[in-house]
Amino acid sequence: MSEKLIIIGCGAAGITIASNVRKKDQAIEITIFSRDRDIAYSPCGIPFVLSGAIPSFESLVMHDLQYYKDKGIEIRINTEVTAIDLVGRSIIADGKHFEYDKLAIATGPLSLIPQVPGIDKAYPLRNLEDGKKVKKALEIAEKAVIVGAGPIGLEVATAFVNNGIATTVVERAPYILPCVLDPDMASIVQTKLERSTGVNLMLGAPLGAITDSDHEGVKSVTVGKEAIPADLVVRCTGTIPNTDLAREAGIEIGEVGGIKVDSTMKVKAIAMAVENVYAAGDCVEVVNQITNQPCLSQLGSTAVKQAKVVAENICGGSDVFDPVLHSAVYKIGDIQIGSVGVTYRDAKRAGLVPVVGRATALTKARYYPGGKKIEIKLLVFRDRLIGAQIVSEDYGVKERIDALALAIKSGMTVQQLLRVETCYTPPLAMVVDPLTLALEDVKRQTSS
Amino acid sequence: MSEKLIIIGCGAAGITIASNVRKKDQAIEITIFSRDRDIAYSPCGIPFVLSGAIPSFESLVMHDLQYYKDKGIEIRINTEVTAIDLVGRSIIADGKHFEYDKLAIATGPLSLIPQVPGIDKAYPLRNLEDGKKVKKALEIAEKAVIVGAGPIGLEVATAFVNNGIATTVVERAPYILPCVLDPDMASIVQTKLERSTGVNLMLGAPLGAITDSDHEGVKSVTVGKEAIPADLVVRCTGTIPNTDLAREAGIEIGEVGGIKVDSTMKVKAIAMAVENVYAAGDCVEVVNQITNQPCLSQLGSTAVKQAKVVAENICGGSDVFDPVLHSAVYKIGDIQIGSVGVTYRDAKRAGLVPVVGRATALTKARYYPGGKKIEIKLLVFRDRLIGAQIVSEDYGVKERIDALALAIKSGMTVQQLLRVETCYTPPLAMVVDPLTLALEDVKRQTSS
Repeated sequence: MSEKLIIIGCGAAGITIASNVRKKDQAIEITIFSRDRDIAYSPCGIPFVLSGAIPSFESLVMHDLQYYKDKGIEIRINTEVTAIDLVGRSIIADGKHFEYDKLAIATGPLSLIPQVPGIDKAYPLRNLEDGKKVKKALEIAEKAVIVGAGPIGLEVATAFVNNGIATTVVERAPYILPCVLDPDMASIVQTKLERSTGVNLMLGAPLGAITDSDHEGVKSVTVGKEAIPADLVVRCTGTIPNTDLAREAGIEIGEVGGIKVDSTMKVKAIAMAVENVYAAGDCVEVVNQITNQPCLSQLGSTAVKQAKVVAENICGGSDVFDPVLHSAVYKIGDIQIGSVGVTYRDAKRAGLVPVVGRATALTKARYYPGGKKIEIKLLVFRDRLIGAQIVSEDYGVKERIDALALAIKSGMTVQQLLRVETCYTPPLAMVVDPLTLALEDVKRQTSS
Repeated sequence: MSEKLIIIGCGAAGITIASNVRKKDQAIEITIFSRDRDIAYSPCGIPFVLSGAIPSFESLVMHDLQYYKDKGIEIRINTEVTAIDLVGRSIIADGKHFEYDKLAIATGPLSLIPQVPGIDKAYPLRNLEDGKKVKKALEIAEKAVIVGAGPIGLEVATAFVNNGIATTVVERAPYILPCVLDPDMASIVQTKLERSTGVNLMLGAPLGAITDSDHEGVKSVTVGKEAIPADLVVRCTGTIPNTDLAREAGIEIGEVGGIKVDSTMKVKAIAMAVENVYAAGDCVEVVNQITNQPCLSQLGSTAVKQAKVVAENICGGSDVFDPVLHSAVYKIGDIQIGSVGVTYRDAKRAGLVPVVGRATALTKARYYPGGKKIEIKLLVFRDRLIGAQIVSEDYGVKERIDALALAIKSGMTVQQLLRVETCYTPPLAMVVDPLTLALEDVKRQTSS
């Protein structure tokens, strides 16, 4: 009889585990349980359908059920797993037991919901169904409030502005993108964003309540003493790991609330030895490479990377998932924003007071028309890079963040990094790369 | 009395040495001798003025003579240095001796001129004056031939096509960009280029002669038995180091024809000890990091990097210039082309037979409109990257080449590189970076 693999959750992690296991092992039975209706789509694309950049939600869907069935991957949609039995090696769904030889938990995130009056009037935006509802609401909305100025909140806000809707973002923190940027870099983005989109940003503004107004269909959002009229409210207030199922099964949950995994992505149980149970994606917690502390890295790219490790190890390999640098990039309106490693605040909190190197440069040669500003902030501790943030209205942010992730990973010193050759042609770069300028700024401060 | 620095040549290397020395040393007397009329301009920009992308040649000029004079940098234009006297520590120009304490030779390149009948009828394109003459000729030209399918030849060819001129490029080698790409990658560029610009590429076609035709002003270019009618011929046939002055002074010339320098960019003299004489830019030869062999790296970015090392050392520092990876990027029409390290041919020639990793991917998420193909070729020897070539009609080539230069420099293995986090957002990237796909292709071949 062939082995059975059960995967709980059909997001980026779950589906990638299934596909990659199938590539290596034609025999193993693979079943995915998903409580959602839609499968194999990119949730990261939802704000860009709302903006109109992507023509339809259908484009986000990669494959249908039949495609996976043909590969021998059974996906049970609309099916909630209610328990994991580690001893009996089975899970329970629809009241029935399903046995497994190997189990992968990819239960994803849970939305953080602000506990304020009327919060049920705010649209969530977790999945494709939510996206479709918001798109429909968008057609008749005139004034919108987005709760949360994280990446998704701002992507959605610029999407709304693109639809001609007067949009206000309310954010508890005193600056936008508080998990991605330091306040100084966030302030650069804020200025650009307000100027280019006209979006109204209310910062240091915790949500008070959402109330129905006098006339039909119109709501109002209160923040402190202010009431912001809105006929559409969307909450983009971040997520935490969805660990209920794992916790109840006796699987260890870590310090920052995610499922604890070892470097091979195996889980640990509290009272027993457990083999062949893995977890991946937004439900797990990981180790930060810089601080060596547990942290969350709820990114699609992280989920896919972890899923590949899980698949390799399910098939008898011995791959490991390294501590994270949380490389991330966002495009909010025309603004590209990237970060990697720790922010200044996180570095200080971990006892690492960094030297800060900065550069404001151009994305093309000085004389080449169309070049845009690029702003770089590097954090260096003991002559080694520990973090970086980049903002530009032109291309080259994503790949520079990737290069900086590589630089951090390599452990190279600032002096060594300065000796790396960067390439140049007037339509695509300055003769000295902006990253080099920022590294030179670090060197000036540390060599004196 | 203050020290005297003489710099011969006012290109990227010469002017960067002067500016950087001045930043560190307010007292030293700095004199630059240049045989050209124009100073402090970007020759790399010339093809883009011809194409119309840059509005005028004037935009290429960074500063005028007065700007440098105000900084205490005297530039003697239109002044040919005729000899260097290493013993007397002086140079001769205009029949007069000028003494130096420190000397920097930045004499740049010499054009390689095919020795064929009528070659004097072809326009050169070395400097701003040449550029202006070609631009003028362009106004009345209808059919042009470019000699040489290197980066500049192709940049100029697409510029001509942009001006509505029927353009043929004749190239001796059997493929375009022979110093930059392997034939397989060159062929991808060729197809894109022919399709998008209509430029006519004649490869494996050594120039026979340039002849005047019967009627006034019209020439014809013969290649083999074929005669290509043309009223404008431009030669872009590459350059060699300009070393005459150095050679006659008894300075050592290396195996590949450039001035030999040590890692601090100091020259060596054949029959005597010489101190405080440096060379930088297109006139020197360098060491290839991969093959450990001498080579040329005639790039603006290399010249600037070397010049900074020279400036630092002239001012008493001890900076070194590392062996090169020759990171280079070009934009030819809408095609972006980058390379770093060695080509397959160069690797084999040096006895390193590489594993080849390939990826054809997209520059945005699969479903995001406007994503373009990106084609990557990686060369790996003993589990370490030794070269890479990238072609795309979208952004991200330059920064990926820089990341790969960093990867080579770091000495990280393929497995280590695969663990680097790359960042993702649908409008800017696929969830798995194309570089990761190419590395995975290497891994598949080496782990079996």
